[in-house]
Amino acid sequence: MKRIGMLTSGGDCQALNAAMRGVVKSIYNSGQEVEIYGFLNGYRGLIYGDFKMLTSRDFSGILTIGGTILGSSRTPFKTIKDPDENGLDKVEAMKQNYYKLKLDCLVILGGNGTHKTANLLRQEGLNVITLPKTIDNDLYGTDMTFGFQSAVDLATSVIDCIHTTAASHGRVFVIEVMGHKVGYLTLNAGMAGGADIILIPEIPFDIDKIAKKVEQRLKDGNRFTIIAVAEGAISKEDAKLSKKEYQKKLNNKKYPSVSYEVADLIQQKTGQEVRVTVPGHMQRGGSPCPYDRVFASRLGAEAGKLILEDEYGFMVGYRNREIVKVPLEDVAGKLKMLDPDAAIIKEAKMLGISFGD
Amino acid sequence: MKRIGMLTSGGDCQALNAAMRGVVKSIYNSGQEVEIYGFLNGYRGLIYGDFKMLTSRDFSGILTIGGTILGSSRTPFKTIKDPDENGLDKVEAMKQNYYKLKLDCLVILGGNGTHKTANLLRQEGLNVITLPKTIDNDLYGTDMTFGFQSAVDLATSVIDCIHTTAASHGRVFVIEVMGHKVGYLTLNAGMAGGADIILIPEIPFDIDKIAKKVEQRLKDGNRFTIIAVAEGAISKEDAKLSKKEYQKKLNNKKYPSVSYEVADLIQQKTGQEVRVTVPGHMQRGGSPCPYDRVFASRLGAEAGKLILEDEYGFMVGYRNREIVKVPLEDVAGKLKMLDPDAAIIKEAKMLGISFGD
Amino acid sequence: MKRIGMLTSGGDCQALNAAMRGVVKSIYNSGQEVEIYGFLNGYRGLIYGDFKMLTSRDFSGILTIGGTILGSSRTPFKTIKDPDENGLDKVEAMKQNYYKLKLDCLVILGGNGTHKTANLLRQEGLNVITLPKTIDNDLYGTDMTFGFQSAVDLATSVIDCIHTTAASHGRVFVIEVMGHKVGYLTLNAGMAGGADIILIPEIPFDIDKIAKKVEQRLKDGNRFTIIAVAEGAISKEDAKLSKKEYQKKLNNKKYPSVSYEVADLIQQKTGQEVRVTVPGHMQRGGSPCPYDRVFASRLGAEAGKLILEDEYGFMVGYRNREIVKVPLEDVAGKLKMLDPDAAIIKEAKMLGISFGD
Amino acid sequence: MKRIGMLTSGGDCQALNAAMRGVVKSIYNSGQEVEIYGFLNGYRGLIYGDFKMLTSRDFSGILTIGGTILGSSRTPFKTIKDPDENGLDKVEAMKQNYYKLKLDCLVILGGNGTHKTANLLRQEGLNVITLPKTIDNDLYGTDMTFGFQSAVDLATSVIDCIHTTAASHGRVFVIEVMGHKVGYLTLNAGMAGGADIILIPEIPFDIDKIAKKVEQRLKDGNRFTIIAVAEGAISKEDAKLSKKEYQKKLNNKKYPSVSYEVADLIQQKTGQEVRVTVPGHMQRGGSPCPYDRVFASRLGAEAGKLILEDEYGFMVGYRNREIVKVPLEDVAGKLKMLDPDAAIIKEAKMLGISFGD
Repeated sequence: MKRIGMLTSGGDCQALNAAMRGVVKSIYNSGQEVEIYGFLNGYRGLIYGDFKMLTSRDFSGILTIGGTILGSSRTPFKTIKDPDENGLDKVEAMKQNYYKLKLDCLVILGGNGTHKTANLLRQEGLNVITLPKTIDNDLYGTDMTFGFQSAVDLATSVIDCIHTTAASHGRVFVIEVMGHKVGYLTLNAGMAGGADIILIPEIPFDIDKIAKKVEQRLKDGNRFTIIAVAEGAISKEDAKLSKKEYQKKLNNKKYPSVSYEVADLIQQKTGQEVRVTVPGHMQRGGSPCPYDRVFASRLGAEAGKLILEDEYGFMVGYRNREIVKVPLEDVAGKLKMLDPDAAIIKEAKMLGISFGD
Repeated sequence: MKRIGMLTSGGDCQALNAAMRGVVKSIYNSGQEVEIYGFLNGYRGLIYGDFKMLTSRDFSGILTIGGTILGSSRTPFKTIKDPDENGLDKVEAMKQNYYKLKLDCLVILGGNGTHKTANLLRQEGLNVITLPKTIDNDLYGTDMTFGFQSAVDLATSVIDCIHTTAASHGRVFVIEVMGHKVGYLTLNAGMAGGADIILIPEIPFDIDKIAKKVEQRLKDGNRFTIIAVAEGAISKEDAKLSKKEYQKKLNNKKYPSVSYEVADLIQQKTGQEVRVTVPGHMQRGGSPCPYDRVFASRLGAEAGKLILEDEYGFMVGYRNREIVKVPLEDVAGKLKMLDPDAAIIKEAKMLGISFGD
Repeated sequence: MKRIGMLTSGGDCQALNAAMRGVVKSIYNSGQEVEIYGFLNGYRGLIYGDFKMLTSRDFSGILTIGGTILGSSRTPFKTIKDPDENGLDKVEAMKQNYYKLKLDCLVILGGNGTHKTANLLRQEGLNVITLPKTIDNDLYGTDMTFGFQSAVDLATSVIDCIHTTAASHGRVFVIEVMGHKVGYLTLNAGMAGGADIILIPEIPFDIDKIAKKVEQRLKDGNRFTIIAVAEGAISKEDAKLSKKEYQKKLNNKKYPSVSYEVADLIQQKTGQEVRVTVPGHMQRGGSPCPYDRVFASRLGAEAGKLILEDEYGFMVGYRNREIVKVPLEDVAGKLKMLDPDAAIIKEAKMLGISFGD
Repeated sequence: MKRIGMLTSGGDCQALNAAMRGVVKSIYNSGQEVEIYGFLNGYRGLIYGDFKMLTSRDFSGILTIGGTILGSSRTPFKTIKDPDENGLDKVEAMKQNYYKLKLDCLVILGGNGTHKTANLLRQEGLNVITLPKTIDNDLYGTDMTFGFQSAVDLATSVIDCIHTTAASHGRVFVIEVMGHKVGYLTLNAGMAGGADIILIPEIPFDIDKIAKKVEQRLKDGNRFTIIAVAEGAISKEDAKLSKKEYQKKLNNKKYPSVSYEVADLIQQKTGQEVRVTVPGHMQRGGSPCPYDRVFASRLGAEAGKLILEDEYGFMVGYRNREIVKVPLEDVAGKLKMLDPDAAIIKEAKMLGISFGD
């Protein structure tokens, strides 16, 4: 008999359910008896002992359903080491619930923040297996995360729609794409949507070069320009600031986000009409795309296998086209960023896409 | 031989191309010889004589393509009666181009603003046929406009995506839906997306009732609330202001749009986390939905028939399930709004949807 | 306290769940206490007393889910008046279960066959309310049925995909569209997908005219032809046969369906390569389109209202843009067909579409 | 000045246009002057000198368009070495046209058959660069082909739709998925669609094991079973036949395809109602998915780079996450099949999927 705790933490994304279904199906199909404790709303459920017992029925029919049947939350991450408002030591509370329920292991699905905490729990002696979930694809130790391709599909569908409007009206359109501090999502959605300019955090931009590109397109007879801007994009000037100075600037900013700043500056410099679209949270919702369903199911199945073999302390990741186990200590606290000299960046430039650099 | 001028004016929407294809196909198939002058970028093309000759080839394969092959613009509407910056009388310029090209008629596709100008040209003696284009469905004289159902589909797809995120995180989500000054689009997308609260211009809202509904849902065990807000939604207090006072308030407003105001107030009143999504112009883009393709094609075909019969001065509209010709003077300058006592509103309320009234 | 039995019968379609949710939500929101007995797998559940108790929770989150949470079946229709294999009188059995459970009424969702049985139960003294469900839109007494628009969307998406292949290879493609014995679905999907030829049961076709049209298109420089064929399409010759003779011919036929016959004959007559695609049951599956979600929700809400007012013996239908109650005896046993002289047919012809007549 | 011939050959698929746009954009953006000769309808255009001159304009806006702007054909493959019906030596004819037009190279987009011919032309001394196009992903020398992921998406969407119908009616559904002689497409669509049984050419099936699985599912309370069958799936018995014997059997077969045979046998053995859906050519149509757009664009850009560097005789492929050049002689005539012991197969089995083995 295995007693497994499971939780999803951080911003939700597509295929969380598919991944959990994979874990549970592979254990059930092995014939191993199992009890599954689903902790609600991320680490919060583990801290406060808020869970429900799940059976294989609960995982039936959820392959194609977005979100997470366990709920998620971001709250405890920032202050995981501190006591909560009632003085409760959160790490200690998680350990106690783990032991009280006599769990054999925890299956934790999450992104960067989640992995820091997961590694902390591992260091505290708990058996932990994690799965790499994020639309940002910024998790160290894996080439791919689930949620990413679904988010690319959605962000691209927005750019596709904007394209017809931009072309009809001869406007400049800025589409703000998610992706936290990295550019994978914006780069892929931008290339897929035929963006003319793509701004990502890894390549700080020069607003004058962007304006010049917009004007050049007009001269070449192109009535419109599509600009995909990562929510974490940054100008060359701002990139020179210290973290503190930049945060201060952000707090005082007159724009709700970098997209609006870029849009305003282009309008000022070129005199062209510029519009901004911010699809926002829709990028992390809806049914997972087939790629993510297959990928998350595979990762889940392999996580189940590790549990059956009592191998803990790993993230199940994907490297060089193989599903591999990556030690948690190699993942926690590290960010995977795009290399500005990566082949895909060079290819994008060959296609005529400007990065404003 | 018929010499037909054609133009698309105002904000673009889906199925403009489908409608133009319908007009042209029905004339070509009648065996009537025809020359088609496509004026570029709305009335601007007619004013400045900017056009290209089109053949049946140009209309092949565009049934499913969003936007307009002729381009569009909004500019000349506001000042149609005044001279332009060079002193040119714009109405006079349009008439001169019409006569210079010896046109038999103009086919004009547009929404409310466009129809005012179209009627003006009719009063000046030009032969005009119009087609009702707008995602807002606010055109007087027709039960339906093309673009509307496509926009409903897109706005609903956004709400669908947001739903999974809202459910996972237990948040309140405000989705701002287009629709100008009327609520058709928001009402339909909201009902289709399972929104709990729908705010439309025709039913001014009481923010306290909205907050109460959000709290009631939480008490009933619903962790999240979806609120669809029309871009033209208005509070009961603001609805009492004079047009001038309200405009003044809008100019001084601290929120980019009413959605942000609603979101902020709910957060203040309920303490719940509220997020805003503004899909914006994507709602008017992309391939038209099948309903709009059929509908626009039918309207276009009937417009072609009117031209073949030399019947001018009409909008081709849809009433009580029949395609009809509506005198332009009955359409121009009038807005079609939702009746707050309409059956669909009552039904929405039966389903438990709150309008904040 | 209301005690309501509910069942879905016949081929499933999109928005069955949306409609049931509408009924239940409107009753719950009225404050009326209610017990809901969900009979499983159509009339079969009512005959054999196979049901489950449902609460408002069961109807939460199903607005966007295809299929039916109650299951469906076609079996008992054909022999509803005869005893089953154990000698059980099926009508009597349904009545007994109705009275045993002390039901106030039955809510029955279905198409043509279903309505015959529903009317029979009404004649036997049971309180019945029905909702018009079918992708065929062939129900008498209502302008529209839910499921129809969703099926149009899916069939159109298939034609859209085929279009690019047909154009690339210069082929003739036959797409077989569902619709039972009527042409609504094929006509609308065909027009939306830009089909060149549309064959529907209401307009028997002449294969020579179809072949001629294919050849004419080739001469005009169009390398491909798209033909949308209703599963119930029929040739002029076959249309002259008696029902018995035609059935005999169908039984002896060498083709799996009329599409294959049309394809084979065109290939013989024109020498062109012809391919057949039969999307089949996918047309009745998947998430309902926004139009159907709104429409089914509205019908459901009004059905709930009738129940609250103890008004029975009606189908809730849609006529001239109003939701109306239609006496069941006016609906049962009647088929709604397309009028070959309907405006939409004429418009399709104006657009150059051939019906092979 | 570069003079480049370009052609697309074999069954069309998604992202052919995206790939050609990539080649052309990267050359134009390099500043290199270029003349592009687009041969029409595959090798046929090269044989008979049927081409059109293309400019960068022709490649604008085609990133998202399915099919191929050059047309395609399969015909000449089978008999490439033989003279045509007029005695013309086809290989010689292609060479002559190549030299007559003073081409610097040919860019050829195609699958397995296409690559055999491309390699033949290379052996004859022509400069050739190829791009790996096929929904089957069966090309040797590359981990991935464009078109594959788009086809997975479409086939999955069909299974998704069928799922709701199957669940509502408690039926067994067989969905026939394309993929020629390999199982990649069926495996991925089947896993993404939640199929219970997946039959692929690489793992011959035992019909009794399939029937047993169907019955086991019924016993476990699952009312329906989804079976994804590759068009090239084969039974254990048939797999033992010689190629000649098997071909003879196929010619005499009473079923239109293996899916119908599987369906019929399951129905016989289990007594359950089984339905077949054959989405067919729709799987290779429609707009390419974002993954394919990015992937094809990248391959195209790198092909352009090779041309600029006068490096010929290669297919531009993808291996271990890098875009690489693969010598044509290493690709031609080889088929890439799934390894029955691949990790993904094992994972599918862990998830409870049966392969009938």
